[in-house]
Amino acid sequence: MNSNDLPVPDTRAETAARARQLQLTKPPGSLGRLEELACWFAARTGNPIPEISHTEVFVFAADHGVAAQGVSAFPPSVTGQMVANFAGGGAAINVLARLEDCRMEVVDVGVASGAEPPPSVRREKVRAGTRDLLAEAAMTDDELTAALNVGARCAREAVQRGAQLLIAGDMGIANTTAAGCLICAFTDTMPEQVVGRGTGVDDAGLARKRAVVTAALARAREAIGKPQAPASDARRMFAQVGGLEIAAMAGFYIEAARNRVPVLLDGYISGAAALAAVRLEPGAVRWMLASHRSAEGGHGYALQALGLSPLVELGMRLGEGSGAALTLPIIKAALALHRNMATFASAGVDGKSP
Amino acid sequence: MNSNDLPVPDTRAETAARARQLQLTKPPGSLGRLEELACWFAARTGNPIPEISHTEVFVFAADHGVAAQGVSAFPPSVTGQMVANFAGGGAAINVLARLEDCRMEVVDVGVASGAEPPPSVRREKVRAGTRDLLAEAAMTDDELTAALNVGARCAREAVQRGAQLLIAGDMGIANTTAAGCLICAFTDTMPEQVVGRGTGVDDAGLARKRAVVTAALARAREAIGKPQAPASDARRMFAQVGGLEIAAMAGFYIEAARNRVPVLLDGYISGAAALAAVRLEPGAVRWMLASHRSAEGGHGYALQALGLSPLVELGMRLGEGSGAALTLPIIKAALALHRNMATFASAGVDGKSP
Repeated sequence: MNSNDLPVPDTRAETAARARQLQLTKPPGSLGRLEELACWFAARTGNPIPEISHTEVFVFAADHGVAAQGVSAFPPSVTGQMVANFAGGGAAINVLARLEDCRMEVVDVGVASGAEPPPSVRREKVRAGTRDLLAEAAMTDDELTAALNVGARCAREAVQRGAQLLIAGDMGIANTTAAGCLICAFTDTMPEQVVGRGTGVDDAGLARKRAVVTAALARAREAIGKPQAPASDARRMFAQVGGLEIAAMAGFYIEAARNRVPVLLDGYISGAAALAAVRLEPGAVRWMLASHRSAEGGHGYALQALGLSPLVELGMRLGEGSGAALTLPIIKAALALHRNMATFASAGVDGKSP
Repeated sequence: MNSNDLPVPDTRAETAARARQLQLTKPPGSLGRLEELACWFAARTGNPIPEISHTEVFVFAADHGVAAQGVSAFPPSVTGQMVANFAGGGAAINVLARLEDCRMEVVDVGVASGAEPPPSVRREKVRAGTRDLLAEAAMTDDELTAALNVGARCAREAVQRGAQLLIAGDMGIANTTAAGCLICAFTDTMPEQVVGRGTGVDDAGLARKRAVVTAALARAREAIGKPQAPASDARRMFAQVGGLEIAAMAGFYIEAARNRVPVLLDGYISGAAALAAVRLEPGAVRWMLASHRSAEGGHGYALQALGLSPLVELGMRLGEGSGAALTLPIIKAALALHRNMATFASAGVDGKSP
């Protein structure tokens, strides 16, 4: 599939929104990025005065074989336990989704735990965790396709329910190692730049993690062999070093773009998934908005490669979609200002001095 | 009055809040500044699990004699017109205050317009605008006292109504010139660093504005004469080059601190008022939280001198309290996470690997 197949934003609605901004009772440009946000959503909704009242959050969870290498500060048991915590409403993303009235769905794309997940968790388990990406391909091509399709299905259903903005979050112990591999591979950076402490490994853990990423990338490049076409090369790399939840997120982002529904990116894992999505389907980036820059340093490289500038930088590094959900009120405020402020004419306020 | 007279935050509540953060189901530190915010409010409310449900916004409006020097992109008539716009609910701060359910009051501390303000506007006019600070002292000492008292009264009444967090906003054509003078005077910086385009003056206007600030500071320093005590020197400088709305904001900030109620600072004008407040009463800074960094470059110098780090930087430069109101949801989210997230024990989630 060619990226030209993905829809493009509506520049006429954007132009009309820009004209409206100049009429509102404030010095031109004085609302900064809030003005840009209103125009960005105008272009994505095709409405010069856009409204976003229905946002959905999906948290994709899966385990990673590479956790066996001691690359995380937390044991792999935590992935399944956190899925139960999401189902029980106790995680950060639950609190934030409730504050913003977002429908939230938890999706098991590949949790390793044998324990039965709570009934509210959507069962889409492609495999009980990836294989160890240090030793072999994390996923087969079929598994990658299946995981991409899980995300796509979730996005499609949300769109059918009327969602106007979509958020994907992640849960998966050791997934910053997989994401680090992807960001290195897709931005031509080094593990020393891109791989950080994740949930909080110590110095020895960080060194181990960087060594794992370095070795895994060498192994994966060898396994892939000669470059063919960019999208198929990216796909093969994705299977080699990716994760099931990351693939679901990438499929989710691509499907949202296909349906002209914007996505609000989260942090490091989301950035890796977005990069992968854009390597598969370059046009998907037009529908992506960056919420925050993670404290996990490598996130900046992913955002830079995507050409996106985050709204906030608050030292967050939790994942789950938490950074994205946190910035929803900024978007809502931008759209409310655009919609509800008086104009110079309606309020009888003089414009700029001649 | 000695700064030691102002209350200090409750470190025991803060310590208890920090301990709670370590129990919540997330890697320690992974919520970044949201964790700090919860602990900051714990210390200010004396409650380890703080709640902020009542916030009030006051917009202080006044004119500036220095507008006659052509230092603003907008004519002085706009101050009074915007007061009417605030009363009518059409300004940016109205939209944001409604979104966050804040009580909002518009206070005429010194609008020059002869037109009768709408009945909902609080009349506290100290003088119909300041004198031209380029030519003479903007305010007499009595006028400064009166304006400080207006702000203090507003804060006291809000506290009596149960306000737990206070925002002061500004409206006053040419007030970035007065604020620029104050920031230069109180941070020992140069007009070239601190004075920007305000509502959007062109290059000639910017040069004029900087020349006005340079000359006004020289005049004011001459008028003040030899340094005496820091607080009284600051007070005399404030009268020389300040503004009535800026003085009301400073009085508002000091009175909030006296009542152990934190204030959420806004942008450039608010930063100048906060600096002035802290020069008069150093302990007031303990009750100040910085919301955003304004696109008006000099704001950073004010924040740096206050030792405050803003939550967001979104290119805003509108004033009115808009940047502060915009960041309220971030604060609410931080406190909701602190209050409502599950703990490792309650959710049955394993802690860090040994």
